[in-house]
Amino acid sequence: MIPSTLRNIAISSALVLTAFAADPLPSWNETDSKKAITDFVEKVTKEGSSDFVPVPERIATFDNDGTLWTEQPMYFQLFFAIDRVKEMAPDHPEWKTKEPFASLLKGDMKGVAASGEKGILEIVAASHAGMSTDEFEKLVTAWLATAKHPKTGKPFTEMIFQPMLELLEYLRENDFKTFIVSGGGIEFMRPWTEKVYGIPPEQVVGSSIKTKFEMKDGKPLLMRLPEVDFIDDKVGKPVGINSHIGRRPIFAAGNSDGDRQMLEYTQGGDGARFMLLVHHDDAEREYSYGADSKIGTFSDDLAAEAKKSMWTVVSMKDDWKIVHPE
Amino acid sequence: MIPSTLRNIAISSALVLTAFAADPLPSWNETDSKKAITDFVEKVTKEGSSDFVPVPERIATFDNDGTLWTEQPMYFQLFFAIDRVKEMAPDHPEWKTKEPFASLLKGDMKGVAASGEKGILEIVAASHAGMSTDEFEKLVTAWLATAKHPKTGKPFTEMIFQPMLELLEYLRENDFKTFIVSGGGIEFMRPWTEKVYGIPPEQVVGSSIKTKFEMKDGKPLLMRLPEVDFIDDKVGKPVGINSHIGRRPIFAAGNSDGDRQMLEYTQGGDGARFMLLVHHDDAEREYSYGADSKIGTFSDDLAAEAKKSMWTVVSMKDDWKIVHPE
Repeated sequence: MIPSTLRNIAISSALVLTAFAADPLPSWNETDSKKAITDFVEKVTKEGSSDFVPVPERIATFDNDGTLWTEQPMYFQLFFAIDRVKEMAPDHPEWKTKEPFASLLKGDMKGVAASGEKGILEIVAASHAGMSTDEFEKLVTAWLATAKHPKTGKPFTEMIFQPMLELLEYLRENDFKTFIVSGGGIEFMRPWTEKVYGIPPEQVVGSSIKTKFEMKDGKPLLMRLPEVDFIDDKVGKPVGINSHIGRRPIFAAGNSDGDRQMLEYTQGGDGARFMLLVHHDDAEREYSYGADSKIGTFSDDLAAEAKKSMWTVVSMKDDWKIVHPE
Repeated sequence: MIPSTLRNIAISSALVLTAFAADPLPSWNETDSKKAITDFVEKVTKEGSSDFVPVPERIATFDNDGTLWTEQPMYFQLFFAIDRVKEMAPDHPEWKTKEPFASLLKGDMKGVAASGEKGILEIVAASHAGMSTDEFEKLVTAWLATAKHPKTGKPFTEMIFQPMLELLEYLRENDFKTFIVSGGGIEFMRPWTEKVYGIPPEQVVGSSIKTKFEMKDGKPLLMRLPEVDFIDDKVGKPVGINSHIGRRPIFAAGNSDGDRQMLEYTQGGDGARFMLLVHHDDAEREYSYGADSKIGTFSDDLAAEAKKSMWTVVSMKDDWKIVHPE
């Protein structure tokens, strides 16, 4: 048995060596951003280096919306919520005259927005609660199988960023453990992150609603309640990281004001640290937005802090050869 | 380079093969419990078997108090809380006359108990909150380095169960991901579970108090607040599992009524499942307690459900050759 095992190992080793020899980030242009990333990874993984970080502490956290996939013209989870409400509408005749549902069903998104946070929470409660966690997982999976992005017509799971996929894989090859830390719903992401990003459910941190353990027809399950449990955004991100990971990351990537505290918290630890912001400046291949955008706001304050703290700001336009997988 | 790599791999492979050939659970007697465990692991890991479980779904969850280490004469975390209060007492002269602190400082545990849940929460708030998460980690680590179990005189981290250590390792060798899911404090466990159990912080689920992101002297940190966030016990365990892991375990081990819902939730999934309860029936080598114990209650109801559902009840006395590492 050993000889055949050895042969297989020899083949694997050869593949691994080839992989390392090849460019780990082929969709990144040869710019300062790429060099900063590879310099960091090389120094923290080099044994004997003063910047060496032991494997268990190689924690990398990634925001999702706008960092790993597109977040325009609005967060993809909102498309899911809207489609759910439309699907449920026949059973809810009262929605025809009740806001924010009435506006939503007429496609009047300004009317929905006018209902404020309370209205958004009502939509979330109607579309995300009242079923078991198992049922919700099936709803998300079924929706993703058919829903399409309004601009590109692609499935939402193809609106991911190829250079970021390579970055995730490059970090994992260097024994980093990669996590998502997103303002999006934790249970909206978990059904597909393993397949799409290689990130398993237990490495996904996000916003959540409460759940309750129940026995239904003798079967134990968790019911999703119409009550917010945790908002994993802004000051919530370090809290979510501490709750789910229990270690300070050494690498964090985001794209907006919602990621600021995650990057600050990452930077606040000892030793080498890497903070990255994706800047959406590519109207041609994706979207261009910044301080004035309500979705994925990249404020002047954030830009100033990034500059002062020497965070790596990735220009989608200049640093990436391609945006979405081709 | 390849030949030397290959030689090293050949040596590792030989070691691995030897390890698999040897008994993976040497501290377990050859009883039904041991056979049930190894039968389960063999069938879910055998490719082509109808019970085969893919590696990512091999999730195993373990209670801590009474399952991985001793929980008598009281939860070890309470010893920590008491020692903290004693240490802080000189700065709190008012505690001399204020319950539950007055009783605690006099060593009158019945008086402490008389203050009820409110009293316990006050002790937790005084001993576990008001510092950063980094400071709390240092306090726990320093305490464990010197504190001793009142009966055995051993450090608390040596009051772990050798057969359960072997079980954790055996599952991991078979590509299970092992998690702790405990009613104990998540941040009380994380500083030492990797070293003691081989379970990293991100695979520890427990009860928690709230934390708040703050900048202190320009340094970002998380302050621990005197406010309960989540109780990871009874119906809370499936909720904690879903929140932190996002998959239903296929293997769960506990020892008391607090673990009942975790085992029910585990059993409720499709395919092969393994539910284990450690029964403390060994007054000579550890402790003997059950339905009447306030700590680690093993009620008649639990015993009846275990029997009906064919959960494996491990007798410490009969199934284990040794209890604590020797």
